[in-house]
Amino acid sequence: MLNEANIIAYLKSEFPKYIGDDSAVIKKDKTCNYVITKDLLVEDIHFRKKYCDPLSIAHKSIHVNLSDLAAMGSKAEFILLGISIPNSYSKYAKQLFEYFTKISKKCGVVLIGGDTTSSPNKLFISITAIGVAKTKAIKYRVGAKVGDLICVVGELGYAHLGLVALEGSFKGFKEFKEVFLKPKAKIEEGLWLAKQKAVHCMMDISDGLFIDLKRLCDASKTAAKLNIENLLFTRKFKLACKKLNIDPVKTILTGGEDYGLLFTINQKQYHKLSENFRRKFGYGLKVIGEIIEGAEVMLTENGLRKELELRPFSHFGESL
Amino acid sequence: MLNEANIIAYLKSEFPKYIGDDSAVIKKDKTCNYVITKDLLVEDIHFRKKYCDPLSIAHKSIHVNLSDLAAMGSKAEFILLGISIPNSYSKYAKQLFEYFTKISKKCGVVLIGGDTTSSPNKLFISITAIGVAKTKAIKYRVGAKVGDLICVVGELGYAHLGLVALEGSFKGFKEFKEVFLKPKAKIEEGLWLAKQKAVHCMMDISDGLFIDLKRLCDASKTAAKLNIENLLFTRKFKLACKKLNIDPVKTILTGGEDYGLLFTINQKQYHKLSENFRRKFGYGLKVIGEIIEGAEVMLTENGLRKELELRPFSHFGESL
Repeated sequence: MLNEANIIAYLKSEFPKYIGDDSAVIKKDKTCNYVITKDLLVEDIHFRKKYCDPLSIAHKSIHVNLSDLAAMGSKAEFILLGISIPNSYSKYAKQLFEYFTKISKKCGVVLIGGDTTSSPNKLFISITAIGVAKTKAIKYRVGAKVGDLICVVGELGYAHLGLVALEGSFKGFKEFKEVFLKPKAKIEEGLWLAKQKAVHCMMDISDGLFIDLKRLCDASKTAAKLNIENLLFTRKFKLACKKLNIDPVKTILTGGEDYGLLFTINQKQYHKLSENFRRKFGYGLKVIGEIIEGAEVMLTENGLRKELELRPFSHFGESL
Repeated sequence: MLNEANIIAYLKSEFPKYIGDDSAVIKKDKTCNYVITKDLLVEDIHFRKKYCDPLSIAHKSIHVNLSDLAAMGSKAEFILLGISIPNSYSKYAKQLFEYFTKISKKCGVVLIGGDTTSSPNKLFISITAIGVAKTKAIKYRVGAKVGDLICVVGELGYAHLGLVALEGSFKGFKEFKEVFLKPKAKIEEGLWLAKQKAVHCMMDISDGLFIDLKRLCDASKTAAKLNIENLLFTRKFKLACKKLNIDPVKTILTGGEDYGLLFTINQKQYHKLSENFRRKFGYGLKVIGEIIEGAEVMLTENGLRKELELRPFSHFGESL
């Protein structure tokens, strides 16, 4: 079957050197590299026009790319915009370009090129973002060590909850809808974490915590123990899940589009690093588990192993 | 009205430093730059699946980007592939990835990243290509001087003729169809021309000779005299146009997708450069006009001014 995992595995086998992280790293000069990523946003696959206004699409298409760079320890400097627009979207597209300009400038990003074409019927956006990072301060998915604490920053599950509310046209759930419509890349957090030696590896959480943690473990040839009781961070999230009749744990594990950061820390240095993080950013890291030997992501609840049937995240039931 | 020219003008006014050439140039190190381009290929806008097999799409999507780099004097080293695939295209997509791999390797290009998603109904391909070029050997659109000879390499009009034959399901016209289906970026020619001091500016011809020459003139703040009698290069092209009942001159002027190179040469150095080019590549440059003072592209035929009503190229009547 053709799916994203198969395709990436095939391309990685053919081009093993660069593929496998949130962004690609190519040499700039003696001390620095360019860090490059490319993400697509496709109408009726990633968003619906009826509830995503031009501001949301412009914001999201930029931030999902900035998130990929942040996860490696890089801040975007340049961006290329490829956009394919249905002829009837003239007004929507004009606003999209205006917001795109505004948000790029706000993020300190310069548009350096791209391509604009018609589209037969759906809006299609492809962004390439390029940042610089010192060679020594880049984090990869490789590097997790047995005994490391697994940490996250960001509100997991919020985006998916927001999507469920938007798809079902439920009133309210504003905070969650906002996270889906306008995710904020953890840029400063990523830059700071990448500089810390105690942080062994990092990636962003875009396809769902469970699958992304599995990828991190695979890259590092380790396994993980994920403590479910540590995942349910806020009362309002649990309450909102109840109202929408969705499972809070499954939503967090497979929801996708969180654009938080997932990383592992040397256990001995966790306390100091965690304090410094809180002092710097005004909120805390969250420990959700531990790196162990093996090759799987094991779920536990209050010390006991837990089996859950998890379906990988897909926006609207598509298979890729 | 929202069209590509308006959009580019708007984005260029907001981000004036990098936009306006076939590729963007960002600093690498003391002597070199990275040259970056991004082109989209959209089903039923740029191609139809019924006559474009996976080999053609893989080839074309890579070469249109390599052509943008060649036009600046750079050869692609890296590529990122964004692709959005309808669920029913599984077999087609599998072959596409295989050909994409094969052709990238043949071109010496390494795939370093990208994104793969579902598509609601059409195939979308977005490629970002990155090359290196010495700062001194990059050609821009700016630089044409009054008195320069306007030259091209490549078979102008062939691709559009091929497209007309494919769209009308006409048998034969194989050579022309091949140029549309598998355009060859003029990589070596671009690299060689970029090194020549006598070449003052360069771009590729992708949207049609007339509009592309106008862009070159606008960038250089010059005008051009374009000699129509110099355009009709081959007997077989004229014959094929007659069979398809299309105007050969208009096809050449507005056809698009030629992926030839358009450049201007210091008139005094033309003879020597032209000889060297022929010796190196086994075929000749073609002189099609002269850079003059003013702000328009003036058509002449045997010394007399000629007015032609030209409709900018669009693949299937789309407005962007």
